[in-house]
Amino acid sequence: MRSTVTSGWTLLSRAVSHSVSRRYSLLPEKKITLEKFEFPSATHTIAGVTRDLDNYLDNQDAKIILNGHMNRKPKKISKLGFAELRDGSGDGQVVQLMMSPETTDEKYLELLKTSKPEDSVAVIGYAREKQTKGNDFESKEKQWELVVEKYQVLNPSTLEASRLDYLKHTNPEDIPPHLRYLQLRTPFYQKTLRTRSKVAQLVRNTLIDDHEFVEIETPLLFKSTPEGAREFLVPTRTPERFYALPQSPQQYKQILMSSGFTKYFQIARCFRDEDLRADRQPEFTQIDLEMSFINNKDQICRVVEDIVNRIWNEIGGLKMYTLNDNGEMEQVSKNDKLRFSQLSYIDALTNYGIDKPDLRYQLKFHDLSKHFEPMNHSAEFPIVEACILRGAFDPTIKKPKIPKALSDHDSYTRRAAVVIPITNDYEAKNWFKGLLKKEWFKFKLQTSHNETELLKELDLKPGDIIALATRAEFPYENPTPLGRFRQLAIQNYPTKWLTPIRRRAGGDKHEISTDYDPSKVFIGTWVVDFPLFSPVEINDLTEEFPQYSATALESTHHPFTMAKTEDYDYLESNPKKVHGEHYDLVINGVEVGGGSRRIHDFNLQQYVFENILGITNYDALFGHLLKALSMGCPPHAGLALGFDRLCAMLVGSSSIRDVIAFPKNQKGVDPVIGSPSDVPDSSLSLYYIKKDKENN
Amino acid sequence: MRSTVTSGWTLLSRAVSHSVSRRYSLLPEKKITLEKFEFPSATHTIAGVTRDLDNYLDNQDAKIILNGHMNRKPKKISKLGFAELRDGSGDGQVVQLMMSPETTDEKYLELLKTSKPEDSVAVIGYAREKQTKGNDFESKEKQWELVVEKYQVLNPSTLEASRLDYLKHTNPEDIPPHLRYLQLRTPFYQKTLRTRSKVAQLVRNTLIDDHEFVEIETPLLFKSTPEGAREFLVPTRTPERFYALPQSPQQYKQILMSSGFTKYFQIARCFRDEDLRADRQPEFTQIDLEMSFINNKDQICRVVEDIVNRIWNEIGGLKMYTLNDNGEMEQVSKNDKLRFSQLSYIDALTNYGIDKPDLRYQLKFHDLSKHFEPMNHSAEFPIVEACILRGAFDPTIKKPKIPKALSDHDSYTRRAAVVIPITNDYEAKNWFKGLLKKEWFKFKLQTSHNETELLKELDLKPGDIIALATRAEFPYENPTPLGRFRQLAIQNYPTKWLTPIRRRAGGDKHEISTDYDPSKVFIGTWVVDFPLFSPVEINDLTEEFPQYSATALESTHHPFTMAKTEDYDYLESNPKKVHGEHYDLVINGVEVGGGSRRIHDFNLQQYVFENILGITNYDALFGHLLKALSMGCPPHAGLALGFDRLCAMLVGSSSIRDVIAFPKNQKGVDPVIGSPSDVPDSSLSLYYIKKDKENN
Repeated sequence: MRSTVTSGWTLLSRAVSHSVSRRYSLLPEKKITLEKFEFPSATHTIAGVTRDLDNYLDNQDAKIILNGHMNRKPKKISKLGFAELRDGSGDGQVVQLMMSPETTDEKYLELLKTSKPEDSVAVIGYAREKQTKGNDFESKEKQWELVVEKYQVLNPSTLEASRLDYLKHTNPEDIPPHLRYLQLRTPFYQKTLRTRSKVAQLVRNTLIDDHEFVEIETPLLFKSTPEGAREFLVPTRTPERFYALPQSPQQYKQILMSSGFTKYFQIARCFRDEDLRADRQPEFTQIDLEMSFINNKDQICRVVEDIVNRIWNEIGGLKMYTLNDNGEMEQVSKNDKLRFSQLSYIDALTNYGIDKPDLRYQLKFHDLSKHFEPMNHSAEFPIVEACILRGAFDPTIKKPKIPKALSDHDSYTRRAAVVIPITNDYEAKNWFKGLLKKEWFKFKLQTSHNETELLKELDLKPGDIIALATRAEFPYENPTPLGRFRQLAIQNYPTKWLTPIRRRAGGDKHEISTDYDPSKVFIGTWVVDFPLFSPVEINDLTEEFPQYSATALESTHHPFTMAKTEDYDYLESNPKKVHGEHYDLVINGVEVGGGSRRIHDFNLQQYVFENILGITNYDALFGHLLKALSMGCPPHAGLALGFDRLCAMLVGSSSIRDVIAFPKNQKGVDPVIGSPSDVPDSSLSLYYIKKDKENN
Repeated sequence: MRSTVTSGWTLLSRAVSHSVSRRYSLLPEKKITLEKFEFPSATHTIAGVTRDLDNYLDNQDAKIILNGHMNRKPKKISKLGFAELRDGSGDGQVVQLMMSPETTDEKYLELLKTSKPEDSVAVIGYAREKQTKGNDFESKEKQWELVVEKYQVLNPSTLEASRLDYLKHTNPEDIPPHLRYLQLRTPFYQKTLRTRSKVAQLVRNTLIDDHEFVEIETPLLFKSTPEGAREFLVPTRTPERFYALPQSPQQYKQILMSSGFTKYFQIARCFRDEDLRADRQPEFTQIDLEMSFINNKDQICRVVEDIVNRIWNEIGGLKMYTLNDNGEMEQVSKNDKLRFSQLSYIDALTNYGIDKPDLRYQLKFHDLSKHFEPMNHSAEFPIVEACILRGAFDPTIKKPKIPKALSDHDSYTRRAAVVIPITNDYEAKNWFKGLLKKEWFKFKLQTSHNETELLKELDLKPGDIIALATRAEFPYENPTPLGRFRQLAIQNYPTKWLTPIRRRAGGDKHEISTDYDPSKVFIGTWVVDFPLFSPVEINDLTEEFPQYSATALESTHHPFTMAKTEDYDYLESNPKKVHGEHYDLVINGVEVGGGSRRIHDFNLQQYVFENILGITNYDALFGHLLKALSMGCPPHAGLALGFDRLCAMLVGSSSIRDVIAFPKNQKGVDPVIGSPSDVPDSSLSLYYIKKDKENN
């Protein structure tokens, strides 16, 4: 009876129970306590009655029992009692509770005086039409209230909950995080977690029913790869033996491809021990999939597009767009197959300065290298490029406000873009002269400079902002300084420079519009043709320009990605020129997924480990994978989607914390339960470890 | 591009890439390598063609492309080539590949000579009727073979796989565990993991669609409860701060009940660091559910019965039985609601000597305390009980074989049962005299002993076996010695003493039968009325009788379980007499699930922690839970089902390893990837720990 599914409480209590004979608390009063366990179960939900209101309205025989929480502090107004009940239906729906001496026994009106917000209660009564103010019945749906005959408090709440009641109705996000449960009771959070559950179910049913995938759980007690400083370790009760928590099921899923499963997926928990800035969590969830006997990445992409299309349509009720050949956005109708456009890495970096551009915004870059030359590091970073924010401000205002973040060095990883507001006609024509004077240590004129051409090309007008920055011919900086500028511009002007939407306007006619709310519009693209390897960065972020090792390469994504076949020879002659069979899915500037065709050839994988990445101990680290490949492992490819991020997008939140029931804070602390916590030395010694005080 | 869903390979390769300039392996030959990535994708599956065979048979225009593995060593017989292809359809279906000079280019017949079992291949051809031996066409379904026009090896396998080919076809369970992927390719393992996936989907859809549950993921980086020696610790990069991996989502799910979610579930990974005997795994999966505003355990039981009924019918196609009032088993028909019978803890222990009895077997115990009295510990263990195996052996054989395990002390936790075979009529009448003589130090006659009555009651005959043992009036030993004897008897005589099945035999008639295969029959029951607390055992297993602390109590299941209301007063006066609102689901002698109504009253929970269990530091350990209860947490109850065990039962396996893709072995080692492994001291110091060499 203490076996498989019950917990180890036996040991817990055994260990402490000997030491005690104090008796502090008293057994709570029997009647009061047991009443909390004996109550009428709900016969209805608020949403259910509302849906079917005509059946219940003013029908005193149709007894309704509701269970839920008091949504506000109950009030007595003259002889009448008013309260509000919230239950779990409809993401936390609310109904007014009405008590009068005619309908409700005096003792319940008395009880109401001591009832508090967030008490949990059971209520019996019947539905009555609620008189709304103004009596404009025709324009409104019927409202109802519950005339209370009896009610019972199943568990009272505390004064602390009462004090937070105002916050609950105004800014639930500000409820102290250690009281997450109070926050989760409010409609927004009820909706986010319920939506997450629906998305997971839809993904599973789509993959299993429509695409014949098999969900397979892979171990979370994985193997440590000693160099990976991003993994959590798990000591064992064998000396010098540790598990590690996986960053993804990557290796196990490849081994599954060698195990005869042709279509695998898993909604998998993953772990990463890294700094938690930028809305990351030490544990997160991904939709992980892999298919064998794949000869083309499109087979993976089609599955993912199907998933995304169904989620957006069926759960979000949101609009997904793709980019047409004219650079306009077109909505994907519900019955169309969703096919995302493709964008190469170099085009993304050249036009938008980042490999995950937000395509809701036009803002493409101008290459000004013909006109300007960098003063510093011009050999490695020869390109001078510009981004123009047209009509960013009103030039007739004397001191127009230009967002500081655009030019603030702290907004950038290394060097900032040079930002020049064009305040008048003179500046529109002479801005670059000022630039060369003021920033003479950054830029100089090219010999091929042509002023007329430059002015014509850029066509600047008062009210515009132009930003300039340098980059490498083939940039590994990602974002580039100008790419970062573009992100900052979008953040600061969220409704400007929108990519036009092309819509049908009856018959064969179309209309083009940029008048839309970008938060309701989603546009995705595949980013492809990444460099398979990147040179290792060898200086730190205090220096303006990154410096790269001349010899050492690292995998741009991971070492299991296949090279594009046309670049095969470069694997030997010039690995930096090899493109990978990798594909990222980017929606609204967020990388929501990434995948690749994998190397299934044992010899080629070994060559990549050893000769290109210089992993000398590849056998200790990846010997198991090489062995699995060697046993007739079929060709395969796969992808992982960030499940938390997808869900956050769907509920219109910018933070994955909103779609995780109990997120960790930026220090990795769960404020509800207070983890992580200290552990006595005696527990550690069971695992053959001790605290490293010297390092402490 | 290195963000959310890609892994930390950057750091990995960076750390090692500087040290190397050796170049060992050569880039494998371009043409041979790239051909492995360029091949025709399957247009069909073997199962698909078989299903729709008439459309394909002898239709040379209906080109069929199959992808899969060579199932055996290909053969050439005179000018013909034969091979077998296996693909992922139908749990690993197989088709014969046929090549002849008339249909197949010579080069493919040449290639066949070098092809090996487990090579992965792509094959193009058409279907032809296969001539089966004996030509008894009428009695058999049509068979087909693929006439090969072209084929291509996508990845060759190794000689090791060839050497294991015989084992693959005969005893795949004996394939070395580090080659799990070869094992998983065989039909049994394909089936188990595919079944597991279907079960998970069915459970989710049943809970979400039919019962309006919400699936919510709870953290796996949980808090350490220092006394719980069964948990895995996870050091963090903050000194003296550790997470722990959860043994179950118990506390989080109770907090979710205080968060406004009325019906929660999760198919959750759980962790337990304990000895791995008895087919346990350090990580396992449970179907975890909880409901709020519950006033009766039946609300939980009904949901679970619905899940079990659907799994058994829709996936297993298996027969689930319940016990009727006559002690017969009756099959639950597909459209009936499944309602398991209930069995109280004390009845289970009295009749079967265990709280998870296998009800497929009759074998109930006889209380012989009227006739016999124990010689040892007769105050605490006064009951003498017997179990009779009628017709266990053929008494006409001179030396009948009585299974040694029945009486072997090593089969028992503490004292063994006394086992007496009745070999002839004399013994049938005088066995107890021999017993008293031989085991005089164990049993003596009661003053109330009545020989005639005893003989009549037991009615022993030659060929029977009688076993006797002692137990406490209210047993905490579980199984009791006789309960253990019953388990051993079932293991050794799996088809004897079966509980009769009552079946309809047309019209109103019924037939009763014990002629059935017990491995195809499932019977479940709820076990209820457990003691809420058990006295702490204070001696070790070397002593024959357990000894209990006079004062210290532990929770029989866990400290959050509510007492039965009728026992409330005993919480103060005599906690050992309190029954818990706990319920276990037992199927065929296996506890597949357990749950309870919980304490939602803050004061009562505190009283249990402090006054009954003597947990002095309850605030540090469970303060977060008490706080969540105090904020109007509604009444709630829940349950967890052992998902691995359920799946193993469904595929007819006795080991959960068969339904886990990559199980750990008895030493906690994953033989495929070689985890756990050593970690350099430098990695440990990042987590402010070091190896405890003294303890090593």
